[in-house]
Amino acid sequence: MIRVGVIGYGYWGVRLARNFATAQGSRLTTIVDLDARRQALAARNHPGTEVMSDHRDMLRNGDVDLVAIATPLSSHYPLAMAALDAGRHVLVEKPLAATADEALRLIDAAERSGLTLMVDHTFLYTEAVRKIHELVQSGTLGDIYYFDSVRVNLGLFQHDTNIVYDLAVHDLAVMDYVLAKAPSVVSATGARHFDGQAEDVAFLTLFFEDSALISHVHVNWLAPVKVRRTLIGGDRKMIVFDDLDPSEKVKVYDKGVEFVDDPAHIDKMLISYRVGDIWVPNLEIREALQTMVKELLDCVTTGTPPVSDGRMGLRVVRSLEAATQSMAERGRPVEIVQE
Amino acid sequence: MIRVGVIGYGYWGVRLARNFATAQGSRLTTIVDLDARRQALAARNHPGTEVMSDHRDMLRNGDVDLVAIATPLSSHYPLAMAALDAGRHVLVEKPLAATADEALRLIDAAERSGLTLMVDHTFLYTEAVRKIHELVQSGTLGDIYYFDSVRVNLGLFQHDTNIVYDLAVHDLAVMDYVLAKAPSVVSATGARHFDGQAEDVAFLTLFFEDSALISHVHVNWLAPVKVRRTLIGGDRKMIVFDDLDPSEKVKVYDKGVEFVDDPAHIDKMLISYRVGDIWVPNLEIREALQTMVKELLDCVTTGTPPVSDGRMGLRVVRSLEAATQSMAERGRPVEIVQE
Amino acid sequence: MIRVGVIGYGYWGVRLARNFATAQGSRLTTIVDLDARRQALAARNHPGTEVMSDHRDMLRNGDVDLVAIATPLSSHYPLAMAALDAGRHVLVEKPLAATADEALRLIDAAERSGLTLMVDHTFLYTEAVRKIHELVQSGTLGDIYYFDSVRVNLGLFQHDTNIVYDLAVHDLAVMDYVLAKAPSVVSATGARHFDGQAEDVAFLTLFFEDSALISHVHVNWLAPVKVRRTLIGGDRKMIVFDDLDPSEKVKVYDKGVEFVDDPAHIDKMLISYRVGDIWVPNLEIREALQTMVKELLDCVTTGTPPVSDGRMGLRVVRSLEAATQSMAERGRPVEIVQE
Amino acid sequence: MIRVGVIGYGYWGVRLARNFATAQGSRLTTIVDLDARRQALAARNHPGTEVMSDHRDMLRNGDVDLVAIATPLSSHYPLAMAALDAGRHVLVEKPLAATADEALRLIDAAERSGLTLMVDHTFLYTEAVRKIHELVQSGTLGDIYYFDSVRVNLGLFQHDTNIVYDLAVHDLAVMDYVLAKAPSVVSATGARHFDGQAEDVAFLTLFFEDSALISHVHVNWLAPVKVRRTLIGGDRKMIVFDDLDPSEKVKVYDKGVEFVDDPAHIDKMLISYRVGDIWVPNLEIREALQTMVKELLDCVTTGTPPVSDGRMGLRVVRSLEAATQSMAERGRPVEIVQE
Repeated sequence: MIRVGVIGYGYWGVRLARNFATAQGSRLTTIVDLDARRQALAARNHPGTEVMSDHRDMLRNGDVDLVAIATPLSSHYPLAMAALDAGRHVLVEKPLAATADEALRLIDAAERSGLTLMVDHTFLYTEAVRKIHELVQSGTLGDIYYFDSVRVNLGLFQHDTNIVYDLAVHDLAVMDYVLAKAPSVVSATGARHFDGQAEDVAFLTLFFEDSALISHVHVNWLAPVKVRRTLIGGDRKMIVFDDLDPSEKVKVYDKGVEFVDDPAHIDKMLISYRVGDIWVPNLEIREALQTMVKELLDCVTTGTPPVSDGRMGLRVVRSLEAATQSMAERGRPVEIVQE
Repeated sequence: MIRVGVIGYGYWGVRLARNFATAQGSRLTTIVDLDARRQALAARNHPGTEVMSDHRDMLRNGDVDLVAIATPLSSHYPLAMAALDAGRHVLVEKPLAATADEALRLIDAAERSGLTLMVDHTFLYTEAVRKIHELVQSGTLGDIYYFDSVRVNLGLFQHDTNIVYDLAVHDLAVMDYVLAKAPSVVSATGARHFDGQAEDVAFLTLFFEDSALISHVHVNWLAPVKVRRTLIGGDRKMIVFDDLDPSEKVKVYDKGVEFVDDPAHIDKMLISYRVGDIWVPNLEIREALQTMVKELLDCVTTGTPPVSDGRMGLRVVRSLEAATQSMAERGRPVEIVQE
Repeated sequence: MIRVGVIGYGYWGVRLARNFATAQGSRLTTIVDLDARRQALAARNHPGTEVMSDHRDMLRNGDVDLVAIATPLSSHYPLAMAALDAGRHVLVEKPLAATADEALRLIDAAERSGLTLMVDHTFLYTEAVRKIHELVQSGTLGDIYYFDSVRVNLGLFQHDTNIVYDLAVHDLAVMDYVLAKAPSVVSATGARHFDGQAEDVAFLTLFFEDSALISHVHVNWLAPVKVRRTLIGGDRKMIVFDDLDPSEKVKVYDKGVEFVDDPAHIDKMLISYRVGDIWVPNLEIREALQTMVKELLDCVTTGTPPVSDGRMGLRVVRSLEAATQSMAERGRPVEIVQE
Repeated sequence: MIRVGVIGYGYWGVRLARNFATAQGSRLTTIVDLDARRQALAARNHPGTEVMSDHRDMLRNGDVDLVAIATPLSSHYPLAMAALDAGRHVLVEKPLAATADEALRLIDAAERSGLTLMVDHTFLYTEAVRKIHELVQSGTLGDIYYFDSVRVNLGLFQHDTNIVYDLAVHDLAVMDYVLAKAPSVVSATGARHFDGQAEDVAFLTLFFEDSALISHVHVNWLAPVKVRRTLIGGDRKMIVFDDLDPSEKVKVYDKGVEFVDDPAHIDKMLISYRVGDIWVPNLEIREALQTMVKELLDCVTTGTPPVSDGRMGLRVVRSLEAATQSMAERGRPVEIVQE
C-alpha cells in the first residue's frame, strides 16, 4: 500500500486526491495547502486524511511514500527537490519544471536515489492517444509527413505562464510519445493582447533532424469556439484525432499519396490521391487520470520508468524554453538542444 | 458591350469564358489556347467565338477590349504586359505576378494608359467575405486581436508553385480586404515531402506595425480531410467563417473578454469571458465569379478601381515573396516592404 | 427547512438525495431502500441521514415533510398514496402513475389535503426547454404547424415498461409544457424484437382538436447513434432543439412560409420560402435537477402548484395509455380523453 | 444506338435529355413539351434534336426507340401507354402511375410486347444505396430490426400530389430494394397546413408479414433544416446513411444487441450492447442519373429487367395508395395487397 501526500488542493489537486484515495494500491494520507478554505474543503472531502499547510511537516513524518505536486509552475522545482531529498517518489503536474536546468537536477536527484519521478502528462494516458501511439509506432501510417495540432479555447487565463506552457505543453507531450522523436529546431510566433499578461495566442513549428517531418502546434486562449484537433499524415494512412467528438475521436483514413504516370502528359509527373475507407476504432471508456495513477503505482512498485518520466518531461521543457525564446524574436528558428 | 478575349482554356478559363459569354454587358469574342484539344473544346462550347493559338493575333485584331488571363503563373507578366501595351483592360488570375517587381510594372503600365487592371481574387466576391468585411470595417467586432485561417486540402498538386502561392494566396487576399491593413513582417515555415516538388505544407504568421494584431495562415495539400475555417477575434465580438458549411458559413459570437475584479483575490486581475448569443446572418446565394465579372465590367465602364485592383494584387505578392524567403530559412522573420 | 425522505436509492434516487441534501431550504433526513447494499451506500454517502427498508416506518416518524419517490413505475401509486394519506407532500419520478385512474386518485388525495404533488419531469426545468416554452408562448413562432421529436438511444432496456413509458414520456411532457395544449387523438405504432420484452421502437402521432397542429414522437432503444432532436415549426419562425449539441442547443430560424404571386404563372399559387437569419440564444448553464428541486421547495412553501403538477402528470399518463393501446392495434387512432 | 425521345422539358427532363445526349449507346432525337419557352430552350441546348409539342407526332415518326417521360403524375399513365402501344420502350419518372390499377396495365402492356418498362427511382442507382443493398442482402447486418428514414426539406411544394407521393416515394423505393421485401400493412398520419393544398407533413409505419421488422418514413416540406438520414438496425451490425454528408455517407456500426447472464441477477435476462468499431466504406463518385441511364440502355439491349422495373414501381404505388388512405383516417392500419 503506497501512502500518498498531495501538495496543492486546487482544481487539479482535488482530482488527484480523489484518485489516490480510491485507487487499488494507494492510500491518501496527507493533503497540503496554504489556503485555509482549501484546507477546510480537503478535511471535509477526506475525513481520515491529515491536512496541513507546510509540506516540510509532511516530509518529516514517516507517513508518505509518494508526493504528488499540483501547484503553480514556479514551485515545482523546490517542492519536488525537497520531496526527492526526503526520499519520496514524486509526481509533478505538467510541465515538470520552469527550465531545463531545473528538470535535469530533478532527474539526477531521482536517479541517484532510485526514486520514481513522473510528470502528469495526463493526455498520454487517454485511450485515444494510446491507440494513436500504437498505430504510428507499428508503422500502420508509414513514414510520417506531419503532426499538426489545433488547441483553441475560450477558457480562463493562466496568470503565471504564457499559453505555450499552459496549452502547447499537451501537444508537445503527445507528439513526443506518438512520434518517439524529439524536435531539433523550433520557430514560434505569438501575441499578447492584455497589458501585463503573457502571450495568449501562439503558433509553433517544430523541425526534426534528417527528416522532412514537420510539426505544428496552434494554441489560442481567445477563441469563440473550442477546437481540439490533431492531423497526422503518413505516406500510407492518415489520422484525424478530434478530442471533442464523443463517439469518433480517432479516425484512420486509408488515404495516401501516390505518383501516377499519366500517358497524356508524358513529360510531367502527376500526383494522385488514393482514396480509401475510413476506420473508426472502438476505444474503451476509461478515465485517463485513473490510468495514469495506476501506471504510477506500478512504476513505484516495480522500479520501471513510466512513459512520462523525467526524461520526457525534460524534452518537453526544452521545447517550451526554445519556443518562448523564438516567440520573443518573431519566429527566428531556435535550436532545441537534446542530449 | 465590352468585348472579351480569354487566354488559357483550362479549368478556370472555361469558367471565365462561360461567365463573360452570359454576363450582361460583355461579349466573348476570342479564346486563345496553345493546346489543340482545348481549342476544339472552346470551339464546341462557344460556336460564335474565334479560337486561336497565339495571343498576339488576338491583340492585333480590333475585336477585344478586355483580356482575361488564366494561364500558369510564369506567363502572367508577359501576357498582361502585352495586353496593356496593346491598350486592353486586363483581368489576371491570382496571384497577379510571380514577383513584386513584375506586379509594379503592370500597375505602372495600367495607370499610364488609364486601363483597368484587376486580379481575380474570387473569394473577395463571395457573399460571406463581403459580410465579414462589412462587420469588421463597421467596428462591430471592435479591435481585432487575430485573424486565423486553416485551409487544408486533399487536392491536386500545383506543379509550378509552392503551396503558399497556390492556397495561402486566398487567405492573404481575404485578410487584406477584411482587415484593410497590410502586414509588415512574416515568419513562415513549411516542408517538402516529394523530390523535385515545392513545399506542400506551410504555416505563415503575419505581424502588423503598431498593433498586437496577429494573423496566421495554415495550408496543407496532404490532409485526409478538407477544412476551410477562419476565426477572427475582436474585443467585442468574434467570427467563425466555415466555408464548407452549406447553411451557416458565417457565425458571429457575442463573446468578448472582460476584466473582472474578484473580491476574493484582491491583488490579481482575473479575466472572465462574457458569453452571449450567436447570430448567423443570412447570405444570398450568388455565384462569386458572376459578381466578380459584374464588378470588372462596371470598373471598365466607369474607370473606378476594383476592390482587387493591381495594388491589392501587389500587396499579396509581396507577402508571398517574403513568406517564401522566410520559409527557406525556417521561420526567420522577413520584412514585407510596403510603400 | 423542509425535511425530505427519499424512497428508492437507485440511479435517480442517488441524484435526488444529493440535491435535497445540498439545496437551500431542505434537509435530507431519511432514505428508504429494500436492498441492503443500497442502504449501505446511502449510509456512507449521507452520514447524518436515517436509512431504513420500510417506508411505513418513515411515514410514522414525524421527521419528514416531503417524500420523493424514485422507484419502479408499479409502486408509484401505492407509495405516493401512502405518503399523501400520512399528510406528506410528494414528488414522484416520471411518469406519475401506471394508469390515468391511479393518477386521478393521487390528484384528488393531494387536493383534499392541500398537499403539493409534483412529477419529476426534469426536462421542463432545463434552460433549453424553458427558453422554447417562452418563445412559443410569447407568439414568436406564430401559429404552430408541428412538433416533431426524435429520441433514439443505444441504452439499457427498461424491463418493467415499454419504450413509450420510458422515453416518449419526456417528449410528451415537453410538448404539453411548450404547446400548452393537450392532444385529443393518438396513432402509435411500434415493434418488439426480443421475446418477453415490451416494444423497443415506437412512433407516435398526436392530433389536436380544431387545429392543423400535428405532433410526432420517434423513440428507439436499438439505434447505433444517439439522437435528441426536436423541430418546432411555426408560420413565423422555426426552432431546432438539439439536446446533444454542447454549445448550440436551441436555434431559432427566421424562416416561414409565404404565398407569392408569380406573374409568370398567373393561374397557380406558388409557395416560396422566406429565408432569414438564425439566432442562437445564450442559455445559462445550470443543473436541471437543481432548478426542479428549487421549484418544488418554493411550491411546498407557498402552496402554488408547480409546472409539472399532478394535472400535467395525468395528461401525460393519458397519452401514454392511449398510445400503448393504439400500438397494440397497429396505429388505429385512439381518443385521449381529457376533462 | 438507341434513339431517345424525352417528353417534358422541365427540371428533370432537362437532366434526362442531357444524359441521353451524352451517354454511350443512345442518341437524343426528339424533345416534346407543350410550353413554347421550354421548346425554345430545348432547341438551343440540343441543336440537332427535333422539338415538338405533341407526343403523338413523335410516336408516329420512326425516329424513336425509347420514350422518357418527365411530366406531372397524372399524365404518366396515358403517355406511357401510348408509347408502349406504339412499340416503344419506356422510362417513367417516379412514381410509375397515380394508381396501382394504372401501373398494372402498363406492366401488362410492356410484357405483352416484350418492351422494357423502367421507373426512374434514381436513388437506387447511387453508390450509397447500392452499397447498403449489398451489405443487407449479403447478411452482414444479420436479421433486420428496423428501417427508419427521415427526409425533411425546406423546398418547393409539389402542387399536384401530397408529400407522400413526392418525398416518401424515394424511401419506399430504397426500402424495397435494400430489404427485398414488400410491406403488408401501413399506418400513416399527416397534416395539411394550407388551404387547398395536400398534406405537407407525413409519417408512415410499415409492417411486414411474419416478421418483427418495422419501417418508418418521416417526411416534411416545412422544416427549417434539411435532413436525409436513414438508420438500418440489424442484430449483427447497424447502418447510418446520411445522404447530406459529403464524405461519410454510409457508416457501418459494429454494434448489435446481445443477451448476457448477469450472475447478480440470476433470474432475469439483461440486454447489453456490444460496442465495436465503425467502418466507413469508400464510395466511388459517380452521377446516379448516368448509372441509371446506362442500366436502362443495357436492359433495352439485352431484354433483362432493370432493378426499378414496372413490378417495383407497382409495389411502391401500392404503398403510396394505402398510405394516403390511412392518412385520411388518422393512422388506421390499411392492408397493402401484393400478389
